[in-house]
Amino acid sequence: MKRPQLSNFFHGHRAPVGAVPGTLLLHPDAQQPVITVTRYDLERVDTQIVKTIDEIKALMNGDYRVTWINVDGLADLHLITDMGDLFGFHRLAMEDVLNITQRPKSEDYGDFLFVINRMPSLNANDQVAIEQISYFLKKGILVTFQEDVGDCWNPVRDRIRQGRGIIRQEDSDYLLYALLDSVVDAYFPILEHFGDKVEALNDRILERANPREMREMHMIRQELISLRRAIWPQRDVFSSLMRDQKRFVGETTAIYLRDCYDHAAQLMDLVETYREIAATSMELYISSVNNRMNEIMKVLTIIATIFIPLSFIASVYGMNFDANKSPFNMPELEWEYGYPFALGLMALTAGALLTWFWRRGWIFSGKDR
Amino acid sequence: MKRPQLSNFFHGHRAPVGAVPGTLLLHPDAQQPVITVTRYDLERVDTQIVKTIDEIKALMNGDYRVTWINVDGLADLHLITDMGDLFGFHRLAMEDVLNITQRPKSEDYGDFLFVINRMPSLNANDQVAIEQISYFLKKGILVTFQEDVGDCWNPVRDRIRQGRGIIRQEDSDYLLYALLDSVVDAYFPILEHFGDKVEALNDRILERANPREMREMHMIRQELISLRRAIWPQRDVFSSLMRDQKRFVGETTAIYLRDCYDHAAQLMDLVETYREIAATSMELYISSVNNRMNEIMKVLTIIATIFIPLSFIASVYGMNFDANKSPFNMPELEWEYGYPFALGLMALTAGALLTWFWRRGWIFSGKDR
Amino acid sequence: MKRPQLSNFFHGHRAPVGAVPGTLLLHPDAQQPVITVTRYDLERVDTQIVKTIDEIKALMNGDYRVTWINVDGLADLHLITDMGDLFGFHRLAMEDVLNITQRPKSEDYGDFLFVINRMPSLNANDQVAIEQISYFLKKGILVTFQEDVGDCWNPVRDRIRQGRGIIRQEDSDYLLYALLDSVVDAYFPILEHFGDKVEALNDRILERANPREMREMHMIRQELISLRRAIWPQRDVFSSLMRDQKRFVGETTAIYLRDCYDHAAQLMDLVETYREIAATSMELYISSVNNRMNEIMKVLTIIATIFIPLSFIASVYGMNFDANKSPFNMPELEWEYGYPFALGLMALTAGALLTWFWRRGWIFSGKDR
Amino acid sequence: MKRPQLSNFFHGHRAPVGAVPGTLLLHPDAQQPVITVTRYDLERVDTQIVKTIDEIKALMNGDYRVTWINVDGLADLHLITDMGDLFGFHRLAMEDVLNITQRPKSEDYGDFLFVINRMPSLNANDQVAIEQISYFLKKGILVTFQEDVGDCWNPVRDRIRQGRGIIRQEDSDYLLYALLDSVVDAYFPILEHFGDKVEALNDRILERANPREMREMHMIRQELISLRRAIWPQRDVFSSLMRDQKRFVGETTAIYLRDCYDHAAQLMDLVETYREIAATSMELYISSVNNRMNEIMKVLTIIATIFIPLSFIASVYGMNFDANKSPFNMPELEWEYGYPFALGLMALTAGALLTWFWRRGWIFSGKDR
Amino acid sequence: MKRPQLSNFFHGHRAPVGAVPGTLLLHPDAQQPVITVTRYDLERVDTQIVKTIDEIKALMNGDYRVTWINVDGLADLHLITDMGDLFGFHRLAMEDVLNITQRPKSEDYGDFLFVINRMPSLNANDQVAIEQISYFLKKGILVTFQEDVGDCWNPVRDRIRQGRGIIRQEDSDYLLYALLDSVVDAYFPILEHFGDKVEALNDRILERANPREMREMHMIRQELISLRRAIWPQRDVFSSLMRDQKRFVGETTAIYLRDCYDHAAQLMDLVETYREIAATSMELYISSVNNRMNEIMKVLTIIATIFIPLSFIASVYGMNFDANKSPFNMPELEWEYGYPFALGLMALTAGALLTWFWRRGWIFSGKDR
Repeated sequence: MKRPQLSNFFHGHRAPVGAVPGTLLLHPDAQQPVITVTRYDLERVDTQIVKTIDEIKALMNGDYRVTWINVDGLADLHLITDMGDLFGFHRLAMEDVLNITQRPKSEDYGDFLFVINRMPSLNANDQVAIEQISYFLKKGILVTFQEDVGDCWNPVRDRIRQGRGIIRQEDSDYLLYALLDSVVDAYFPILEHFGDKVEALNDRILERANPREMREMHMIRQELISLRRAIWPQRDVFSSLMRDQKRFVGETTAIYLRDCYDHAAQLMDLVETYREIAATSMELYISSVNNRMNEIMKVLTIIATIFIPLSFIASVYGMNFDANKSPFNMPELEWEYGYPFALGLMALTAGALLTWFWRRGWIFSGKDR
Repeated sequence: MKRPQLSNFFHGHRAPVGAVPGTLLLHPDAQQPVITVTRYDLERVDTQIVKTIDEIKALMNGDYRVTWINVDGLADLHLITDMGDLFGFHRLAMEDVLNITQRPKSEDYGDFLFVINRMPSLNANDQVAIEQISYFLKKGILVTFQEDVGDCWNPVRDRIRQGRGIIRQEDSDYLLYALLDSVVDAYFPILEHFGDKVEALNDRILERANPREMREMHMIRQELISLRRAIWPQRDVFSSLMRDQKRFVGETTAIYLRDCYDHAAQLMDLVETYREIAATSMELYISSVNNRMNEIMKVLTIIATIFIPLSFIASVYGMNFDANKSPFNMPELEWEYGYPFALGLMALTAGALLTWFWRRGWIFSGKDR
Repeated sequence: MKRPQLSNFFHGHRAPVGAVPGTLLLHPDAQQPVITVTRYDLERVDTQIVKTIDEIKALMNGDYRVTWINVDGLADLHLITDMGDLFGFHRLAMEDVLNITQRPKSEDYGDFLFVINRMPSLNANDQVAIEQISYFLKKGILVTFQEDVGDCWNPVRDRIRQGRGIIRQEDSDYLLYALLDSVVDAYFPILEHFGDKVEALNDRILERANPREMREMHMIRQELISLRRAIWPQRDVFSSLMRDQKRFVGETTAIYLRDCYDHAAQLMDLVETYREIAATSMELYISSVNNRMNEIMKVLTIIATIFIPLSFIASVYGMNFDANKSPFNMPELEWEYGYPFALGLMALTAGALLTWFWRRGWIFSGKDR
Repeated sequence: MKRPQLSNFFHGHRAPVGAVPGTLLLHPDAQQPVITVTRYDLERVDTQIVKTIDEIKALMNGDYRVTWINVDGLADLHLITDMGDLFGFHRLAMEDVLNITQRPKSEDYGDFLFVINRMPSLNANDQVAIEQISYFLKKGILVTFQEDVGDCWNPVRDRIRQGRGIIRQEDSDYLLYALLDSVVDAYFPILEHFGDKVEALNDRILERANPREMREMHMIRQELISLRRAIWPQRDVFSSLMRDQKRFVGETTAIYLRDCYDHAAQLMDLVETYREIAATSMELYISSVNNRMNEIMKVLTIIATIFIPLSFIASVYGMNFDANKSPFNMPELEWEYGYPFALGLMALTAGALLTWFWRRGWIFSGKDR
Repeated sequence: MKRPQLSNFFHGHRAPVGAVPGTLLLHPDAQQPVITVTRYDLERVDTQIVKTIDEIKALMNGDYRVTWINVDGLADLHLITDMGDLFGFHRLAMEDVLNITQRPKSEDYGDFLFVINRMPSLNANDQVAIEQISYFLKKGILVTFQEDVGDCWNPVRDRIRQGRGIIRQEDSDYLLYALLDSVVDAYFPILEHFGDKVEALNDRILERANPREMREMHMIRQELISLRRAIWPQRDVFSSLMRDQKRFVGETTAIYLRDCYDHAAQLMDLVETYREIAATSMELYISSVNNRMNEIMKVLTIIATIFIPLSFIASVYGMNFDANKSPFNMPELEWEYGYPFALGLMALTAGALLTWFWRRGWIFSGKDR
């Protein structure tokens, strides 16, 4: 099941507080499992979809070099419990399989290696959905659990089927690598998608900042936070697989895992770079808005400041003091050149203010554009 | 006692500066202790509530595999001192039990292991209250001290009573693990509660920012600071228990503690993610406010800038210069088309200003919405 | 001497650049030293105030288990030099004693252990004054130097006098621990004092932000910077004493020092938590101010935007165009319903604007409160 | 191919998700390769441009001490694959050569050492283009792959040709050092270029802040983010070459590599310093804009606040109440000193307001400039 | 040569990209070297200024314990090359001597120890100039290179001449320590100078914020960035000298170097503290500016909002509708109490608005001061 972002990403379906560790619990949206068993060695490949544990048991008897059991969908608690028992997986690990909010990690349980990582996909609203994948590695056996049908592993399946690369010469540890590698590589197109958007927004903000762009940038930043959270621990997983799990991971595969590690490091680089660019863009946006406000205020101030005194002068000469009653009462109204005098006074005032503005660099300076 | 947040969280009841180390001191709000002794092995379970040290002593004689003594409430100094003496706990550790503002930690005192962690709960005002729990672990014995009655351990008690899981097969170290695990898991619903609120606020701020939302976000950020402070050192506690305390913690339990460690790491992830989201939301909020201010200023500026010159023109023709006294005095008033001329002048001015605004993109551009 | 904050805290009285290392130099405000010699073992305690080196020498001959020589005030260069020589302390260490701006540290000089930490106190203006304390530890001997009379050690002195705790059973390393512990514990009430103020300010800012609160918060932040600077290196001192100085610090004392280390860690936690709360409060304050500005601007804009067009209409009909001269000149003035028409025009304009504001959510929306 | 910034820098041409590891894939803009084989020892130098693998093979037979094969342009997939096969390079390494978005790294593949770093150049728009360079080191052989023709290695070629320095006395590891060193040194002029611009902008912002400067600063900050991303991992490459690759890197060369490491550290210092200066400049800019807004608002407020009451007074005496109808109707208009009284009232009002402003420090204080 | 800040500090005179490593290159402003040879042992001191390499050679023959050759000025490339050859210094180290933008570092070249640190001074404009100093240490020999005449070492020279301290008893490693120590101590007065300015500015900003203060604070912040860049790596130099260079640095000197290390740590503390204070001051400044803007806007809003409606009323009664033509045309003008009615209407409006402002807390609340 591909989930919409954040809330579902974080809110798993956890066993109640204090439950027996290893309590298996169904996620409410879990899908009915589809089990695919792929067996291969250098000469043969065989893929079957099975329904019951007994069918799996039957298939285990073949003497193929590698058996890969992939379970899509986690809704059948009984079946999954049985599978754990069949292979002797620890209940704690099985609990982690079903609790789909685990951090990527790798754990050595003595007789098997347990790995979790997270596979990303992009939904229709440009939001990242991140599916948890669990891997159990034993010599010659790899069991994988996905939340639902649909993954990025078809190219690996093709390589097995067609015998391309060295996959059919190697043991199940190489298969584990091939699957992990596909998952890590699936982040690149998604990150590039966000990278393109960050850059486009950045360019648009540089040109002219609008609230819509800002809101989009904000949403991308939150997606990047999710992605970082998913990628960051994967790096540690790879480095731990390379260094500490020599019992499960062979020499050849370790060299290939170094490649995964590099890719994870590169992904972190990209995420951090985009986050930084997004953050400086937000700063730029805020300062652009401030700037535009400045400009608006300047226009208002200039217009208002010039016309307010002029209007005042006009108002004065609009007063109705009775010039007939007293020679002190607005003699200007009776002057021959009274009106031109008033206009001149206004022109003078306006001129003085304009000069003052010009000397402060507020007008005609061409500097602020 | 569940305490309201911050002040009480930070202000413990500390022994006076320079007091004898190990001075036992009563917290003023401390409750009368309720002592529960639970003894069990694979076949038997026995739970009793006792009142005196002698009763405890009597119960210790039974040959159960594990004895768990849980003390709820720290008000009876005498009794607690006696318990410490009974089991030979160091005075420094006993002091920490009573001083309820300790950081989570684990300390090896030679003949017992001393662990502190903090159990969260959510009070009615959506504030986190964090209770200190102290654990003393010896072979076959676990003594726990809580500040008051009420905890998240009932599922563990049920498991003991009903013999579910492996708890009755294992020693007291596994019991310690089971209790620690319950405490860590108790953080998840609380964090998810805040996570939901952060996301809801984030959505509301994206849509339309109000000061109320901002204030709420501010309060959640402070709760997250408290939570981080409580969770962060627990991770170190688990890793130290797994790695360094092999004398007290067996192989089996160590594997389970790895699970606790993972959960603590996941909690830190969640806290940090919510903090980051909250922080970027605050940024968005601030830039939204700026933006709205911008909009308001633009409306004011446009209206004022257009009407101020028009009003000025009207004022001019409202002046009372006496046209009879001189041909220079406001001849426009006498013109046949004086009034239309004045109105036309106003229309022209308004048109020019509107054009100018339009060319600056301030009106009719549809860009800023 | 308790010093006011910052400038004096940072500006020590340093030997001139390039001086012989170990140059002893008097601090200008240094006080005349008061020397107290306390000798004790399990049975006996003896405290004397002495004036000369010879008196000290005489007292050293007694066969007490521990001799503690405490020097309050550093003004007598000669006496202090002689004391250094008497006990064979390295000149570099003696220089550090007098240069009262040292960072807390512990140094192994081969035949003695040299420790510096800093004792806080709160002066009348709520400012932190931080006094440097130097400790020289040898087997059975502890020499301490304080800048001036007055410290937080009286409870330790009482414990020695009254033989409470294990202090009289242990060697001088335990005395060192007891003194260090008192100093660390002296930070708690001060931090709690600032914590209370931070929370009170935080609440007041949440309710209604004023510049006064902001300024107070700013000053508290600076005090917290000083405190962090004083506390941070103390943690390293304790961990180094516990781990590296086994030659000077016995097994028993090391367990107690772990307690000091915990306290220092807890202090750092508190400082960081308060700093974070103060920082988010500042953010909240700024956004509150922005918000209030927004509100003010809105009122201005609404009032101005409504009345400016109305005033314009009134001004138009206040023009003096002579209706007698021409039928085009303001015929409205002659209309029977001219005045009601003008008032109606105004009411219409005002109504239109109010509607527009209402639809933008600026008035009557009840949303922004 | 020198690429414009960001998008191309980040968006490589990656093998599809899940492809066989080591899949060689052509970058769409890749150029036809030009292969230069340079062979030298103490006495001889020989440089040839070759076209085919066979030619290379032929040249390998010579008994020169060092053979350097430099490939400019990656468009001929077939040829590059053949080269990898010829020298026995691992397919994963060959994939990295073609996937031109690798992080700088050094990897030990057992029989050869694989190094990647990134060579910067500045394009016409002052944007950084960063080309990936791959190095394969074996005893006596160095194979380098560049994305396109044009590099910063001519001085090294001259040194080889002219036998300056010790380059012709040393093995291929020294050649590797010489090339890496040239690449690291190529960052200095570019960083200095940006440094000059940052400082010039900083000075201009200190003097008078304009949006244009801010936008430029923003673009430089983004270039610095790219540069940091390119430089940061190079430091690790050098330290790993010095410490871990003793099998490939001799004693002498290791000393020289220490120099590279120092240069990379110095570059990081420069990048971080410029970033900090740019960040504080942005802060200064924002506060300057705020300040100027303040100033503008003050002018508006002073002018408006003074004239609004004056205009009001004038308006009052412009009302047309009929003084003849009633003695209460504007008797002032009939007073002998009515007009001077009105003017006086205005002067008084203006004076009172000016005084108030002056006492608030808004005018004539000379403080804010 | 003391250099002005930033540009020159960062832009060294580097060998061209790809040059032979160890290329010696003259800095354009380099001064003619002045060479001082100081020889001493416990009994004798001898200081001579020499001009040629041969003179140095001659002086080396004396059997003094320590020979210190100090070169002030780097302009004579030939002479410096010869000196390097005379003592067998590696060309890479000699290149670093001339390239005066090195980071502080210490490097073991097998037969000599090479150290670089940076000596600060304050020029007339309160800007920090930082000179590079290079040290070559061999048993009994110390060669130092400074960019130009003038340093902070006169006290060390005096100590040698007068035999104060233990300098004449110790080997050249102690001399190295003495010089390094002088350089580190030279940072204290400079940092205290900036510290005083930061605090003074901080106080002034607390009282009343002006743009001038902000600009000064900005410049100090940049100086602090430079200082941090110079100090930070020195700490590593001292710790590496203490721990790793036992071959060159004796036991006694190592104890003294611990002192240098402490001083460098203390310097970093000071720099970081001042930087934090400066940063919070900037925040305070910005919020003060916002606040003052708030205040200004409030005044404008109150005055404008009160008088705009009043003016409107006055304008209405200034309209010229002809009351004679119709009873509907402004009958108020004819009322007996028309004028008092109008004034009353105005008073009412003003009163209502004032009440409203008062209830919002905008006036007479005394809260915002």
